[in-house]
Amino acid sequence: MRRIDDLERNGFKIIQETDSFCFGIDSVLLADFIKENKKAKVIDLGTGNGIIPLLLIARDKIETAVGIEIQKANVELVKENIELNNIEEKFKVVEADIKNISDMYKTDKFDIVVTNPPYMKVGTGKVNINESKLIARHEVMCKLKDVIRNSSKILKEYGYFYMVNRVDRFNESITLMNEYKINPTRIKFIKPDKNKKANLFLIEGRKLSKENLVIEHDLEVYKDNGEYTEEIMAIYYN
Amino acid sequence: MRRIDDLERNGFKIIQETDSFCFGIDSVLLADFIKENKKAKVIDLGTGNGIIPLLLIARDKIETAVGIEIQKANVELVKENIELNNIEEKFKVVEADIKNISDMYKTDKFDIVVTNPPYMKVGTGKVNINESKLIARHEVMCKLKDVIRNSSKILKEYGYFYMVNRVDRFNESITLMNEYKINPTRIKFIKPDKNKKANLFLIEGRKLSKENLVIEHDLEVYKDNGEYTEEIMAIYYN
Repeated sequence: MRRIDDLERNGFKIIQETDSFCFGIDSVLLADFIKENKKAKVIDLGTGNGIIPLLLIARDKIETAVGIEIQKANVELVKENIELNNIEEKFKVVEADIKNISDMYKTDKFDIVVTNPPYMKVGTGKVNINESKLIARHEVMCKLKDVIRNSSKILKEYGYFYMVNRVDRFNESITLMNEYKINPTRIKFIKPDKNKKANLFLIEGRKLSKENLVIEHDLEVYKDNGEYTEEIMAIYYN
Repeated sequence: MRRIDDLERNGFKIIQETDSFCFGIDSVLLADFIKENKKAKVIDLGTGNGIIPLLLIARDKIETAVGIEIQKANVELVKENIELNNIEEKFKVVEADIKNISDMYKTDKFDIVVTNPPYMKVGTGKVNINESKLIARHEVMCKLKDVIRNSSKILKEYGYFYMVNRVDRFNESITLMNEYKINPTRIKFIKPDKNKKANLFLIEGRKLSKENLVIEHDLEVYKDNGEYTEEIMAIYYN
């Protein structure tokens, strides 16, 4: 089933396929976590329906974006979203495997790489019957190491890497980022509510930088009454 | 100058040399962060005046402790502290270089390694004129890599590693722990107050374990009025 949602920013809208994969709060938080850089050329690895570039462009935070997506049906959806919002000049989608992007972008590097990669290793978690959801959520097509290694290759020197992932992939993420010379510079943990442990984290890294790491205050998603916290509401509607 | 402080636990006291190095809140928080294991054989790498083993024994959290210390004057002070508290059976101090401990403890492994290592790389931070403080605070004698590599060697399988360090050494700590098969299992960031960024972190790792990481809630040290928070008071006096 399809539905069209308003992104609550400058009239931007998004078409989603509810059978396959709707954007989640993780993508919204990741887009918000990215520092504004109006001249930035951005690449989104595993763009899904294009939500992250759409949010970045709707907020006028970046110059242009390329979305990499391996699933043909998603690529078609992104194309519709680009057309719907009249942003053909700002956002291109490319049907490709993340594992091949360092060959595709040998000379043409990026200021920002952003990714909301599959969180789960194959063989963990509830398996999705729907193949499209399976690819989006599990590392069927692409492992974290592929994502981070290729990100480093296509980043300019001092370019920024942004990712959201689950806390159970945190150690591996830090270690892989250090291995591929993306120095972690900013981390924000996300907690379902103030009494629960963090289950997700947002991370910023910078290629070849020596900057010190900053740990931002934890973001809580829900209040005790089950409503979104003010911080979440501000991210959605500001 | 010397002074004797009450540890506020079961009448335990500690002699400190105020010219060289008094225990700080970091050691108190680290001792508190260690999970109780009444059968544990513990080694403290760079024990200083012995504060961490003293706190662990005063609280009856562990069985026995060995303190490794490279500075002869500190070793003498630890001996006085052991005698003062009548814990010769529980706490031994050994004058040794952390770099040599894996040769010293080839067969005799530990359940818990704890360390409050020098935070600063040589050539960073304010240089201490006092040589004793210099060794304690800067990596003159021992680098983080030496500490973590040797910790892994002297830990039993599934043994626990505990460390406090500065956030600017966080990335390196995670990467080195993963390199030497100490899986990070628990992290707690410490903030001077609720409005400041974390400057220290406590970390627990477990040798060869596959457990998932838990991020604990941040610990704030001071309230707005400059007093210790309730959480800190509870750690000091409970």
